[in-house]
Amino acid sequence: MKIALDGMGGDNAPKVIVEGAVLAARQLKHEIIIVGDEYALKNELAKYKPVPKNISVHHASSVVEMYESATSSIRKKKDSSINVGMLLVKDGKADAFISAGNTGAVVCSAVFNLGLLPGVERPGIAIVLPTLYGFSLIIDVGANLDPNSMQLLQYAIMGDAYAKYIMNKPNPTIGLLNVGTEESKGTDFFKETYKLLQESGLNFIGNIEGRDIFGGTADVIISDGFVGNVVLKVSESLADTIKQMLKRELKKGFITKVGALLSIPAFKSLAKVTDYSEYGGAPLLGVNGRCFISHGSSSAKAIKNAIRVSVDFMSHRINEHIVEGVERFSIKPV
Amino acid sequence: MKIALDGMGGDNAPKVIVEGAVLAARQLKHEIIIVGDEYALKNELAKYKPVPKNISVHHASSVVEMYESATSSIRKKKDSSINVGMLLVKDGKADAFISAGNTGAVVCSAVFNLGLLPGVERPGIAIVLPTLYGFSLIIDVGANLDPNSMQLLQYAIMGDAYAKYIMNKPNPTIGLLNVGTEESKGTDFFKETYKLLQESGLNFIGNIEGRDIFGGTADVIISDGFVGNVVLKVSESLADTIKQMLKRELKKGFITKVGALLSIPAFKSLAKVTDYSEYGGAPLLGVNGRCFISHGSSSAKAIKNAIRVSVDFMSHRINEHIVEGVERFSIKPV
Repeated sequence: MKIALDGMGGDNAPKVIVEGAVLAARQLKHEIIIVGDEYALKNELAKYKPVPKNISVHHASSVVEMYESATSSIRKKKDSSINVGMLLVKDGKADAFISAGNTGAVVCSAVFNLGLLPGVERPGIAIVLPTLYGFSLIIDVGANLDPNSMQLLQYAIMGDAYAKYIMNKPNPTIGLLNVGTEESKGTDFFKETYKLLQESGLNFIGNIEGRDIFGGTADVIISDGFVGNVVLKVSESLADTIKQMLKRELKKGFITKVGALLSIPAFKSLAKVTDYSEYGGAPLLGVNGRCFISHGSSSAKAIKNAIRVSVDFMSHRINEHIVEGVERFSIKPV
Repeated sequence: MKIALDGMGGDNAPKVIVEGAVLAARQLKHEIIIVGDEYALKNELAKYKPVPKNISVHHASSVVEMYESATSSIRKKKDSSINVGMLLVKDGKADAFISAGNTGAVVCSAVFNLGLLPGVERPGIAIVLPTLYGFSLIIDVGANLDPNSMQLLQYAIMGDAYAKYIMNKPNPTIGLLNVGTEESKGTDFFKETYKLLQESGLNFIGNIEGRDIFGGTADVIISDGFVGNVVLKVSESLADTIKQMLKRELKKGFITKVGALLSIPAFKSLAKVTDYSEYGGAPLLGVNGRCFISHGSSSAKAIKNAIRVSVDFMSHRINEHIVEGVERFSIKPV
């Protein structure tokens, strides 16, 4: 298998990206193509001796910056590492593309260049979240800010396939993120979505609330991209805030300082549980190809894990399962 | 001042409510009227010796359950503790009403019985959140799931008044919760709201993201009720999840167990910082009267603090400031 990797995307590119590629290349037998400025990437690669033979560089002459508008970046920077990497997938020269760069630009480029799977209306970004009892998947976290009910049903179908084959949950429970658990909760849009999910044949357990997310109530959490994006960012920052508050408190007295030292192993285990880098890349589900979005501040380990996830995605034929699911479950609106 | 308190609302009513009322009555000189089943409330009160003289009981013969539909509860249970308490405010027999009961029913009853302040289109629930650098206010967290831009502007005006006079922030910064910080982010609805806020004359600092909430980036966070509700519930449960995960990890080995024991003071300080009961009651801003909503699982301390907050609200004439603000800032749609 061949994986194309955006060498220029993310806060610490190309350094961390190349490091992640080297880690993955040494562990996995697959071919990794790093896309971006040839000079910079080869310079970075030269730091590793020996450079793994299954890494190559593919030149792209521009970079989409993090602040750039997604749509205009696609029009104006056709030669960006994001676009060039996506074209490698389109042209069959790579099996998957991974980027830690501008999320909006990756989504636009994927839809524009790869198109969507048959029957799929809109792509969705799915993220694996650590919970008190394992892991849950939330879809969408920002690809589609204003979905309709049918699109949310399709997210459920896509999330179901991902949870089944990648997260090893044979019959994943599906929950609709709402402001209350009763069927009557939320706006008319939510009531309509509830009905579609209930009639879909999926393992729909009803509405879930914000408080249920980290309790692991549902294996797959369905949300519009706006709410999902806010949830994701709030969670990341709150986990961080609590750690910082605790650190501050633990530094206050001698006794608590000693306590803090002795507690270090526990903090390390906790960090591992709440560390998004374990999963590395979020699949952009629904596109006709394989595309993964990594966090802008991804570590080398996160990039390595994103590569591993992309391999799993291919070997479990997730896209085929999504197409089957959309055919089987989708209730066409009259 | 006279404060009416829903004796029957909340997970631990009437026990915890009466306990909170007694705590407040002993500290504050104001009159507290507990509304609900006279027999049950007097029984509960008799446990305190002496019963403070500034506590009285006002009978109400039914209770709105937590799972009941808000609108039908108002129609079917006119004699509920929520409705009867609200009528005490309407009739000038109490200056404020506090309930830890069914939030939807409280909002409906307040709008139906008290009406809205002149110029205000919809009420909003405002919650004080602890952040890394103090406290922020988020409005709305569930009264209005589908607001228009003008209503969000009015939330900003109401939040500004609350932050200024209750939270002692002379010139509170206002942020619009969105999926990115750039002006161009979000749906058209968000772009329109951004423009209204920018032209309002308030101290608007632009869009903020989910990750900025607990960093204390904005003093007042503007959100629709759906997103605000999810944010609030996610935050509560994540804080809880992290504490539970840490506890689990700290119990794993002897060394970390000792560490955990020594760290207890730090955990206690942290709990205080992240403890919502410190603020007790969330004001329902915009109604023509004074109404506060407490968490369903409120402790006696939370109820006591809600009573304190309601007194502050009156003495700082928040409603008058809101009316002034709506007149001064509101840009009427053409």
